[in-house]
Amino acid sequence: MSLPLKIFVDLATPPDLLELLQNGTRGHELVLPQTPVTSVLVEAPPDPRFAAADVAFGQPTVRAITEATGLKWVHVSSSGITRYDNAAFRALAAERKLVVTNSAAVYAEACAVHALSFLLAQARHLPLGLKTRAANGASEWTALRGASSTLRGQTVLILGFGAIGRRLVELLQPLHMNIIACRREVRGDEGVRVVTPGQVAPVLTHEADHIINILPDNAESRQFFDAGRFARLKPGAVFYNIGRGSTVDQSALLEALRSGRLQAAWLDVTDPEPLPAGHPLLSAPNCFITPHVAGGHRGEAHTLVRHFLDNFDRFVRGQPLLDRVM
Amino acid sequence: MSLPLKIFVDLATPPDLLELLQNGTRGHELVLPQTPVTSVLVEAPPDPRFAAADVAFGQPTVRAITEATGLKWVHVSSSGITRYDNAAFRALAAERKLVVTNSAAVYAEACAVHALSFLLAQARHLPLGLKTRAANGASEWTALRGASSTLRGQTVLILGFGAIGRRLVELLQPLHMNIIACRREVRGDEGVRVVTPGQVAPVLTHEADHIINILPDNAESRQFFDAGRFARLKPGAVFYNIGRGSTVDQSALLEALRSGRLQAAWLDVTDPEPLPAGHPLLSAPNCFITPHVAGGHRGEAHTLVRHFLDNFDRFVRGQPLLDRVM
Repeated sequence: MSLPLKIFVDLATPPDLLELLQNGTRGHELVLPQTPVTSVLVEAPPDPRFAAADVAFGQPTVRAITEATGLKWVHVSSSGITRYDNAAFRALAAERKLVVTNSAAVYAEACAVHALSFLLAQARHLPLGLKTRAANGASEWTALRGASSTLRGQTVLILGFGAIGRRLVELLQPLHMNIIACRREVRGDEGVRVVTPGQVAPVLTHEADHIINILPDNAESRQFFDAGRFARLKPGAVFYNIGRGSTVDQSALLEALRSGRLQAAWLDVTDPEPLPAGHPLLSAPNCFITPHVAGGHRGEAHTLVRHFLDNFDRFVRGQPLLDRVM
Repeated sequence: MSLPLKIFVDLATPPDLLELLQNGTRGHELVLPQTPVTSVLVEAPPDPRFAAADVAFGQPTVRAITEATGLKWVHVSSSGITRYDNAAFRALAAERKLVVTNSAAVYAEACAVHALSFLLAQARHLPLGLKTRAANGASEWTALRGASSTLRGQTVLILGFGAIGRRLVELLQPLHMNIIACRREVRGDEGVRVVTPGQVAPVLTHEADHIINILPDNAESRQFFDAGRFARLKPGAVFYNIGRGSTVDQSALLEALRSGRLQAAWLDVTDPEPLPAGHPLLSAPNCFITPHVAGGHRGEAHTLVRHFLDNFDRFVRGQPLLDRVM
């Protein structure tokens, strides 16, 4: 590998972050974008200097990557890798021996805690409880108490079992729920019962009281929750989405909420984001939406940069990278 | 003990519960109140037949207990035992060899889960997140993500360490917080750092990011959180109350919220309950109130009766009772 390395970083870099990056890549060349970047989820505008990069950290476009023939490693600044997660890009990466890593570890902890907050807010019916001043003994009060639960003995299905799912299992452990995970390849080290997507239908129909969708966006997962799947859910099930909005047929979700088949939906992701004013999901019964903040946490940008620098250090030493996806 | 026993039950008893009670006390005499009861928290009206009871299950008044000279055991249908928790009653109970038990075990699990739901809703800023449609990258969005937390490394103080506190510690364990408990008598089996009420001041001032108040109502705890205590909290601390509203000076709480010293308050109990329309706490900044439903859960009334019957069985056999408080 020819040193120094050219590292293209299309990330918002206030002075403290820039200093952290400079210190962590000393001896190499840091290239910052000409147009400032505001979100890790936003694609960077084209930058002619990208073509000479050895390493890219951010959200480079497939076109930019294709043109940068000397590129050796892309570290994606999000957990989602939608634009790279297809056969054509994988073939390009394999041919070029291009390594791709993501930032899953940066957001996993916060995403798992966010999912747990949804689950508990639903179990304790916080949206209703925080709105009412029901008096002790009133029928509204008795109904609210009786609808509240401790989650003990209920069944939760976790769809997509990566870093977030694994952490979520740890957080759920003391609640004494039945936990089932669904992932493409069962490895046997999950510590909970695991089914494949092909085996998930009967779990959805007969077992899952809570369905936590952490599916990424790709060709297989798109519209995974379609009208057929929603229609066959256990009546009264609760649906949570902290994966990607595109994995859900939102019209079917709306219908499942309106018919009462779904007791409630808690969504951190939608399609598009945010939903336009007046979108029917915004006023659907028992539909609770946060604006894609599950991965958020204090010091998030620093964690993101440190995770990259940790990987950069490994890259320079020729060690295996963290969160490698290709 | 002369059999059969007369058991006075001042509890709402729909047919299924009545059957459960009858089956569990077969061979003894069940006496139901002349006026139906609607809530375990409401004191029963006087009933002349109480005077002959051997066992009372519900919320008997001190006056009724005093007049029932043959009474051997009172099983209180709540976790709180305020009206009995004073020197005069304790002396009466001691003199008469009257045993008093409460229903702490019935509500502990749900209360602990409710407290956890508050803590997580605060950590993830759900009240704000569920209201906004902030776009990815907008300053409101960045602020919300940055204010959100995973709770890791933050310090939580649990005031009052009975069945609820113990269960709460189990639920908090996987979040990797620093947990401190405060209780009157340190026993050494708490599994977390423990301080006495006399030692709690510096913890409140320098350590606690989250204060979970589970104090019962008694002469010592009344207005425990007064203006002085609120004024010395760590700036930005969050206050939770699932104990009793009377343990808090609500004007001081209001002031702490208005000044911003407290970041937020999450209350399941207030004084009175519910707060009257227009009460300033109802519109105080970052004050979130549920109407005394922390202990609620599906099948609650059955759990309550089963807990009594379990104790009744022990009582008849002369075994130690569960949740004995006197």
